[in-house]
Amino acid sequence: MADFTLGKIFPLLMGQSNLWQSIAVEPAADAIEVDDSLVLGSVLLSLVAIYFAAKLGSEICARINLPPVLGELVGGVLVGVSALRLLVFPESGSDGTDSLIMQFLERTGGLSEAQVPLLFQTQSEVIAVLAELGVIVLLFEIGLESDLKQLMSVGTQAIVVACVGVVVPFAAGTAGLMFFFGIPAVPAIFAGAALTATSIGITSRVLSEMGRLTSKEGQIILGAAVIDDVLGIIVLAVVASLAKTGEVDVTNVIVLIVSATAFLLGAILLGRIFNEAFITVVSWLKTRGGIIIPAFIFAFVMAYLGAALHLEAILGAFAAGLVLDETDERNELQKLVIPIADLFVPIFFVTVGARTDVSVLNPFIPANQEGLIMSIFLVAVAILGKVVTGASVFGQGSLNRLAIGVGMIPRGEVGLVFLGVGAASGVLSAPLKAAIVVMVILTTFLAPVLLRVVFQSPVEAQAEAQQVDS
Amino acid sequence: MADFTLGKIFPLLMGQSNLWQSIAVEPAADAIEVDDSLVLGSVLLSLVAIYFAAKLGSEICARINLPPVLGELVGGVLVGVSALRLLVFPESGSDGTDSLIMQFLERTGGLSEAQVPLLFQTQSEVIAVLAELGVIVLLFEIGLESDLKQLMSVGTQAIVVACVGVVVPFAAGTAGLMFFFGIPAVPAIFAGAALTATSIGITSRVLSEMGRLTSKEGQIILGAAVIDDVLGIIVLAVVASLAKTGEVDVTNVIVLIVSATAFLLGAILLGRIFNEAFITVVSWLKTRGGIIIPAFIFAFVMAYLGAALHLEAILGAFAAGLVLDETDERNELQKLVIPIADLFVPIFFVTVGARTDVSVLNPFIPANQEGLIMSIFLVAVAILGKVVTGASVFGQGSLNRLAIGVGMIPRGEVGLVFLGVGAASGVLSAPLKAAIVVMVILTTFLAPVLLRVVFQSPVEAQAEAQQVDS
Repeated sequence: MADFTLGKIFPLLMGQSNLWQSIAVEPAADAIEVDDSLVLGSVLLSLVAIYFAAKLGSEICARINLPPVLGELVGGVLVGVSALRLLVFPESGSDGTDSLIMQFLERTGGLSEAQVPLLFQTQSEVIAVLAELGVIVLLFEIGLESDLKQLMSVGTQAIVVACVGVVVPFAAGTAGLMFFFGIPAVPAIFAGAALTATSIGITSRVLSEMGRLTSKEGQIILGAAVIDDVLGIIVLAVVASLAKTGEVDVTNVIVLIVSATAFLLGAILLGRIFNEAFITVVSWLKTRGGIIIPAFIFAFVMAYLGAALHLEAILGAFAAGLVLDETDERNELQKLVIPIADLFVPIFFVTVGARTDVSVLNPFIPANQEGLIMSIFLVAVAILGKVVTGASVFGQGSLNRLAIGVGMIPRGEVGLVFLGVGAASGVLSAPLKAAIVVMVILTTFLAPVLLRVVFQSPVEAQAEAQQVDS
Repeated sequence: MADFTLGKIFPLLMGQSNLWQSIAVEPAADAIEVDDSLVLGSVLLSLVAIYFAAKLGSEICARINLPPVLGELVGGVLVGVSALRLLVFPESGSDGTDSLIMQFLERTGGLSEAQVPLLFQTQSEVIAVLAELGVIVLLFEIGLESDLKQLMSVGTQAIVVACVGVVVPFAAGTAGLMFFFGIPAVPAIFAGAALTATSIGITSRVLSEMGRLTSKEGQIILGAAVIDDVLGIIVLAVVASLAKTGEVDVTNVIVLIVSATAFLLGAILLGRIFNEAFITVVSWLKTRGGIIIPAFIFAFVMAYLGAALHLEAILGAFAAGLVLDETDERNELQKLVIPIADLFVPIFFVTVGARTDVSVLNPFIPANQEGLIMSIFLVAVAILGKVVTGASVFGQGSLNRLAIGVGMIPRGEVGLVFLGVGAASGVLSAPLKAAIVVMVILTTFLAPVLLRVVFQSPVEAQAEAQQVDS
């Protein structure tokens, strides 16, 4: 006998109305379940909080001549775990009872206290995925804005900048922690490795906001950040196996190097084929979404491949945008992606801010003090170790070398992955972990400000004027 | 001592890389957890499957002169629980082990069998929310395309069409089931009530695809569908309390009527204020997303209010779009919403198809036969009971009355909510439940085809020609 219970057919349509909950004949009293309309409601409220925070922050920053992305980060801190607690995540140790949105739904939406942890978990998962889609859309858009040929023309400089930006902070950080602070070798190596990363997300967004993404400096920074991301993944594989077994798992490292190289080179070499296939497909399609849907199928497949090859989803999305050549279809696509990015990208930056527990910066909490002293050293190395990379650029005329160095400063993603692996391995002491967190926070939040300053320095303004003349 | 464990700060950034899983020093062997990169990977693969199904289906339909939305529904059936099982949902009784995407991730992505149910649950929740956001975006866009004044000018006709479309199928269905099939009164009333609904989503999308949304017929259908949705919610409250206690809970019904009226009238009356506030805010904003973000804050707040008042989120989103007057800002907004809708809306229609178990239509399964015979009657009443509504339109000249009636046919949402409440109350027999499901499937999938036919009938083509002349 076929089973025709309610849920078997079209349950979405039912879930979509909250009738089902409000007038249901048999409320499920025994098992804890959460109605779909509560999930939707909590996601809608979270998105409203995110968009308010994003616009408030970015508009204020725009008016005081700071990059809007900084405003989104700070707006996120404001609504997040450190302040208003409108947007909190399970990883902060919360079970949702301290989330203002959950409290609001308890008072107004018929949410019971027993349901809070389950609803909170689901809401957090959905927002987290939306944020990850946000950074995927951002890097796809950055890839579209970038020009593969231009990026290749500064390829050698970008490789040098990336290598110097990995070696100098790693060596200086590790040595300094060992000699000045008496940290043992393995934790010092971990902390040094965490100094090597560069956040493509922050850097590319600021460059794009300032209209500098396609400048020579911008392309060198972007290329170096991409290579840096790959280098960081390889360095992490080395230090992680070092911490685990005391030896380096050479096979794993070689597999990573080969797959990273194959993926990026493969994307570039097959780019022409992808590009022609894209144009052919778009010319076939007659219904709505005829450009945007094939483009996002391509971007999502590449993002998936990037993640599946133990690289990153954002590298795949960037490569997807990059290989689409300048054609009418791509120019049209670039326009269509703008509103999608406007809607998705702030979710990423606001949640980054919301998840950041800035109480670690408070020097009046005694437990913070040892870490804060160490962090002064780490921040100095983190900034100087990247700024010197600008000096390593060769063969280019009147470049703003300072801007290139500053562009490599924000840590973000990979730096925190190092922290995570180090924390899980148990080799990092609490003050050292705190110091790494402070370093990541300060470089991430300061870099947009510094980038804005160095790109508006007199040298740069002069160079710009010359460019306009020529 | 402050706790600086990995997860406490910036966990998103870490989750975003799957390094954490692949090179983690201590794999979590005791507790079942799923890495964030697997969640992202499963969502990306699901979206790719959805977009493939949507484009394949809609392009084929467009070429054989059928509405593309039908192609998205059928494409969904193809990848869903009835066929390829790329996209299945827990409500089908699946624990994910029969999902092709889960099986793929088990073979290639390091997913263990024990993790499958948890990952499957999370992936399904995320896709379900994206689908619900999809229908919210759709109704917001439909609201933007509609003109409040035009809709008000056909308001009386829309109310008459909605009321006739509720009373006729309800009376005919209930009476027929009682007299021809010997069904007792309460289940017959439930089944009759399920015949009253109209799916705004399907109808408005088809009208929009055919460019008929702003025709007089289109506006009457849209207005009647909105009113029908509200009436359906009230009818459900009545029959549900009837099944539960044998009496009608008058207070609940009055609260619903008052809140529904207050919400819709309030939105319309306060529309001018919302509209001016929107224009003022947009003129203040200088950073990216200056139109799209305030618009979506408004749409999401209204959708939340609609759901919170025990109406529907889509009613709120529709009202939000509707009250924004024809201004430069709104025309710009309408353009910006297009790519967002292109990306979100197919997720809704494809998942509707994917969740539909079409095996209930198979007459060779003996258990289906009794239900199928009853469903022939229900489908006939469902179609004829709505087609007659066209005859009730008065005071309008050369209208395509058949098109108005046909536009009210698709059941979708509310019809299934009735089924759900009836199933939970235990009053519906298995064959009757099956018959209601078949009725909903057939009206939902046939209506786009019928609408296309009646809007291209000679009478209509003639009327169109006259319109062009005048």
